[in-house]
Amino acid sequence: MNAMNAPADTQPRIDQRPVPQFLLDALQQRFGAQYSSAQAVREQHGRDEGSIQAPPPAAVVFAESTQDVQDAVRLAAQHAVPVIAYGAGSSLEGHLLAVQGGISIDVGRMNRVLSIDADDLTVTVQPGITRKQLNEAIKDSGLFFPIDPGADASIGGMSATRASGTNAVRYGSMRENVLALEVVTASGDIIRTGTRAKKSSAGYDLTRLMVGSEGTLGIFTEVTLRLYPLPEAVSAAICSFPSIEAAVRTVIQTIQLGVPIARVELIDVHSVRMVNAHSKLTLREEPMLLMEFHGTPAGVQEQAETVQQIASEHGGQAFEWASTPEERTRLWTARHNAYFAAVQSRPGCRCISTDTCVPISRLADALLDSVAEAEASGIPYFLVGHVGDGNFHFGYLIDPNAPEERERAEALNHKLVARALRLGGTCTGEHGVGVHKMGFLVDEAGAGAVDMMRAIKQALDPQNILNPGKIFTL
Amino acid sequence: MNAMNAPADTQPRIDQRPVPQFLLDALQQRFGAQYSSAQAVREQHGRDEGSIQAPPPAAVVFAESTQDVQDAVRLAAQHAVPVIAYGAGSSLEGHLLAVQGGISIDVGRMNRVLSIDADDLTVTVQPGITRKQLNEAIKDSGLFFPIDPGADASIGGMSATRASGTNAVRYGSMRENVLALEVVTASGDIIRTGTRAKKSSAGYDLTRLMVGSEGTLGIFTEVTLRLYPLPEAVSAAICSFPSIEAAVRTVIQTIQLGVPIARVELIDVHSVRMVNAHSKLTLREEPMLLMEFHGTPAGVQEQAETVQQIASEHGGQAFEWASTPEERTRLWTARHNAYFAAVQSRPGCRCISTDTCVPISRLADALLDSVAEAEASGIPYFLVGHVGDGNFHFGYLIDPNAPEERERAEALNHKLVARALRLGGTCTGEHGVGVHKMGFLVDEAGAGAVDMMRAIKQALDPQNILNPGKIFTL
Repeated sequence: MNAMNAPADTQPRIDQRPVPQFLLDALQQRFGAQYSSAQAVREQHGRDEGSIQAPPPAAVVFAESTQDVQDAVRLAAQHAVPVIAYGAGSSLEGHLLAVQGGISIDVGRMNRVLSIDADDLTVTVQPGITRKQLNEAIKDSGLFFPIDPGADASIGGMSATRASGTNAVRYGSMRENVLALEVVTASGDIIRTGTRAKKSSAGYDLTRLMVGSEGTLGIFTEVTLRLYPLPEAVSAAICSFPSIEAAVRTVIQTIQLGVPIARVELIDVHSVRMVNAHSKLTLREEPMLLMEFHGTPAGVQEQAETVQQIASEHGGQAFEWASTPEERTRLWTARHNAYFAAVQSRPGCRCISTDTCVPISRLADALLDSVAEAEASGIPYFLVGHVGDGNFHFGYLIDPNAPEERERAEALNHKLVARALRLGGTCTGEHGVGVHKMGFLVDEAGAGAVDMMRAIKQALDPQNILNPGKIFTL
Repeated sequence: MNAMNAPADTQPRIDQRPVPQFLLDALQQRFGAQYSSAQAVREQHGRDEGSIQAPPPAAVVFAESTQDVQDAVRLAAQHAVPVIAYGAGSSLEGHLLAVQGGISIDVGRMNRVLSIDADDLTVTVQPGITRKQLNEAIKDSGLFFPIDPGADASIGGMSATRASGTNAVRYGSMRENVLALEVVTASGDIIRTGTRAKKSSAGYDLTRLMVGSEGTLGIFTEVTLRLYPLPEAVSAAICSFPSIEAAVRTVIQTIQLGVPIARVELIDVHSVRMVNAHSKLTLREEPMLLMEFHGTPAGVQEQAETVQQIASEHGGQAFEWASTPEERTRLWTARHNAYFAAVQSRPGCRCISTDTCVPISRLADALLDSVAEAEASGIPYFLVGHVGDGNFHFGYLIDPNAPEERERAEALNHKLVARALRLGGTCTGEHGVGVHKMGFLVDEAGAGAVDMMRAIKQALDPQNILNPGKIFTL
């Protein structure tokens, strides 16, 4: 496809399949108090943190075991009824919307750590555990799990969307950090993908196929992850710049030099203002980089000196250091709350979040024109970015009751994505496709590659019951 | 499947499909001098470096472009005739064997670098370029490509087998380092998977599905790879140990401490002898670790001091340093030639190479009993290992004309694999399944996961023409 899809495509096609009453009865019979068809529960499970809405699922099952998930899927499969896995509800692209109806399977109660294999730097968990719960559970092991999307997302959901976050520049995304999965398939069978070995050439990489499949190829019931030794030394610094361009050029040069920086986040002046208001901080209201260095004490110092020198050449201020763990936590919490700070800055708004990611040399090209377009649009917005990976997010804060605002914001998003694709990038670095980016996916991957995805989906889920209506239309 | 498959399963099922003369005529017509049906050419393309044999393909096409590959696949597809991509011929598990007949498509002439994007640390190449050719071509860029299987393999073949090598402990395997592919599908269509962006959540991870698919899902015609800045400082050292166990315990502790060592190879006393003879070296004939440290000068020194201290605690000798690039090259060339040194140590032999990989804490358990079994077997053997990843290779040097030797060696291999799987490992860390490990794959992944692989294969290649008879039976 050469032409970019029209903004109207970002609205999902709602076509809820009938859910027979005897299926609901059978689920209630099997699950008792773990089953709910209450309106409030259904509505809570029928939305995510994104801007798009759809009618809720017909019922919710609160799974507490792999067997529960298996039984729920088998019952639904008998009647060709959709099943949608639900973790923490923090996805952004409409992943959880019951656009074809069906049952929500909430795995939030499956939040146990099954085994910490500290000697192998691995951990196996149930999918409902959140990233913060996980790090709390392993804190005595001397290890940590680095992947940190903005929300306190579930590990299952992070795996399903191939999430990343601020540490990905050094530690990779869920693509690199999920070693193995237990998966309930569309027929309700259980398979295991991968092993705890660090690498393998044993057949098709089903683990990587499942990671990022957004619940459309199977429901994850166990996830084995890589862990990392807590760095001996950690230093965090902020550095203000006279312009976004100066900050971005600093990042490009840092990455090109191969500095193993652990985190390098761009925060624009709008975000700084919003974060200051929300988190009671007094950050200087200029574009800034928020950085973290991990390593030995000498290594951290070496890295920081190199980056400080690059920053100075681009007009950056002297680094302000957050040296205690408490100060660091405060800074990074503020960064992670940027999204919520922004949403609160315009009461009643919804946020349309962009997610392009480009090769690092193209970062300035991808960003600066889009900043100019956003400024000119009159839509309130903010910009944050995992810029070390070439990934950044504009958040357009729209009035959900003003369709012309949504249209203007989606038009900005389309221009941004088209630009990123021209520069060799992707429409989504970490949020996934969901219902919102299906048109962008075709623009990016081409019809042939999307057809290949469809063929895989049809082979593994012939009744199209696993989170249907996401990633592509069938 | 609970029972390990019998050693007899490692022999491939030969069932060559008829190749119609009019297809051969059409190929000759289309490809002229790029086509050969000469016996010697066919035989060269019908074998690899492994120990298993089969009759050769019916003809060979020497592709010089994506269009050539596409045309050859389309012609073959019209007659449901198998096509087998051929790179450098260095695979070990019978990947290239024409067990169902068909046409070999040699991509060795497609060996150009298409673009070096030094600012983004990426390069795009044709599949026939070898790893050494690639590093030669980019040597002025200040960057390098780290993945180094023993042979000077082609990048296409390395992608297809999800290869790794000595640097994987720090830089990952082909799984982590292939960013994007151009692929000719079973229908002769061309798709592109991935972009040059460092991360993406845009739909199913077709790149990772293709990497390691051993030519069964598509033929790669372009590969985009990650590159790395040449480290500021590189130090290589060898360290002799009183026992394999002492060496292995040193490695386990090094990895568990998170030392970012670039290479750490175990070489047993048999290998040392063979390498000394083959490469005219005088290495001390004891188990040894061959190590390399990459980083800043201070960082390299810090790493080396840490590992020297761990080694000393386990009875390791003082490090002997190879400080000049020439000395380092000599050492690593000797390591890479271990396989060939071994094969030459027993004239006329074939080598059965094992490839298990286990979680690092299980490395000693996986290795030591297998060493005892190999010693007791009377089969000449050697042991080398990418032990930082938990991956190691026994090479059993068998007389191809003595079936009982093959049987004894395969029995050793079966015990080894069973042990690795019990310890949470994989039957193949980097060589792939080919025709040789199909039984092991079922033991490892389970019938359900292999059925899922089959379903994907059947969806993407309904005529089963892409390198049929590999990974699993259909």
